[in-house]
Amino acid sequence: MILTLTPNPALDVTYEVDRTRIHAEHRVRAVRTAPGGKGVNVARVLTQLATGAVCAGPLGGATGDRLRDLLAAEAPTLRQAWTPIDAATRRTITVVDPDGATGFNEPGPVLTVAESRALGADLAALLAGADPLIDAVTISGSLPPGIEGAEPAELVGLCRARDRPVLVDTSGPALREAARAGATVLKPNAAEALAVTGADTPLAAAAELAALGAGYVVCSLGPDGMLGLDRGGGRTRAWRARLPEPVRGNPTGAGDSVVAVLASMLLTGRDDLPGVLRRAVAVSAGAVTRPVAGEIDPELAAELEPTVTVEEIPCP
Amino acid sequence: MILTLTPNPALDVTYEVDRTRIHAEHRVRAVRTAPGGKGVNVARVLTQLATGAVCAGPLGGATGDRLRDLLAAEAPTLRQAWTPIDAATRRTITVVDPDGATGFNEPGPVLTVAESRALGADLAALLAGADPLIDAVTISGSLPPGIEGAEPAELVGLCRARDRPVLVDTSGPALREAARAGATVLKPNAAEALAVTGADTPLAAAAELAALGAGYVVCSLGPDGMLGLDRGGGRTRAWRARLPEPVRGNPTGAGDSVVAVLASMLLTGRDDLPGVLRRAVAVSAGAVTRPVAGEIDPELAAELEPTVTVEEIPCP
Repeated sequence: MILTLTPNPALDVTYEVDRTRIHAEHRVRAVRTAPGGKGVNVARVLTQLATGAVCAGPLGGATGDRLRDLLAAEAPTLRQAWTPIDAATRRTITVVDPDGATGFNEPGPVLTVAESRALGADLAALLAGADPLIDAVTISGSLPPGIEGAEPAELVGLCRARDRPVLVDTSGPALREAARAGATVLKPNAAEALAVTGADTPLAAAAELAALGAGYVVCSLGPDGMLGLDRGGGRTRAWRARLPEPVRGNPTGAGDSVVAVLASMLLTGRDDLPGVLRRAVAVSAGAVTRPVAGEIDPELAAELEPTVTVEEIPCP
Repeated sequence: MILTLTPNPALDVTYEVDRTRIHAEHRVRAVRTAPGGKGVNVARVLTQLATGAVCAGPLGGATGDRLRDLLAAEAPTLRQAWTPIDAATRRTITVVDPDGATGFNEPGPVLTVAESRALGADLAALLAGADPLIDAVTISGSLPPGIEGAEPAELVGLCRARDRPVLVDTSGPALREAARAGATVLKPNAAEALAVTGADTPLAAAAELAALGAGYVVCSLGPDGMLGLDRGGGRTRAWRARLPEPVRGNPTGAGDSVVAVLASMLLTGRDDLPGVLRRAVAVSAGAVTRPVAGEIDPELAAELEPTVTVEEIPCP
């Protein structure tokens, strides 16, 4: 069972309009509401990949209640172990017209010191317990700044102390700190890896993060596939995986589907990175072709997997 | 005490962003939530004018609970007598950047037949009761189509049967039907009056609505002031009221402030339409200068009132 920690879950609201115009009034044709947040999408993809998952993170208010109910209705086998907070879980609004999507992301609620400590304590209790038995942990997204006892690096330390592999998908200083704390896998995208290291290329950036202490670094390159670095076995090796041709669609949530594949394979004993990258690229393509984040097309993924090319590249 | 009926109340959410761009992602800097819907704003202005008000209409879900709580906190003296419904009250999202506002209005919830009947029954019970004693009624906005027992014309009939003056601020066929049902006051804006009558000028449109059976028709002309028609005393007379110069600001909610003035004067015994129009134009200017719908600047209104020109004009 994989525990997916979502420090900043969201209730994702989609508005359908005929046309989006700046500084005008719009009549919303239809409203759809779905559970959201990066780690929640990871858990939803894990469920579709028939891998058991437990959702954790702070949840509060009427929006939090709604998220929990929608998730329970959509994925009855998914376990939910949220830490209750006073403030309301945030909402995201995506305005969709026939030509594209416009997103408005509310800031997340501010956790009290007691609430962020409770989040760490709940994670520790889940790792110590046996029902469900947690094999590995993913941490997706950022926590609000200035909290005590639940920064990503501390959460990584907590998992390592309990001998659980942990994947971190975040950005900014938290990414470096997670590497230093010895995260098993880091999964930045190219922009995030470049921003935090100051390196010139995604490969150099990934190598820098690996050198800080991460076991594997997988860096998504959007339609150009992904890079993977394995620091195991004494020397760091690197691979590049890609589709012969990128698929078209909605890239939102594709990164979360990659996290789900990495978690279900790399964190649970499978250590052939090239094979894992091949699968991750295929499942990501199966997420891009689905309009909704957190959904994949497993048949397309199975069909594309043999076509993915994986080549070893020199590692700086 | 004036009962303000809001057939389609809303929880008004405002998002502050740095710049609004179509088909891009936005980080929302701040979120503000306020009770909304035209009749709710009328009641808020009445409270600021020190006139007692009771809010009524359908209210449901977590959004409805939030609206009730926010309204109670903002205006403790305002009475609330909502009809509970199963579906959630709608939300409006207004995205504000330094250059303007972009609005997204959710459709209202669909009432069941039982719920729309309960709305009519609750109104009848309020008019029959003595605590609070209802002197007059305003109906602002439209009801969802296809409901039974609570169409605006029926609600007008219900008020007339109980000898209560009633003001209707709506658009489309409901405006004509409210006139035919003998509404005491109609308050369309120029576009609404023109659309429903097919007349060439706002004055001709207002005269047509008066001829259908309304007692007074007050038609707002935006920055050009307003027209008022009085069908009492055997012949119809018309006046035009305006400021020497229009004020600048946010016109959202200005129409609701006009309804509040008309309700607090015309519906409660004061029958000198020119004086009422003078006050309505001044209070409306005091609403335009406030950024938030449902708020007025009473000092500015008092200052502007003597400057408003009111002239009688020939009535077609």
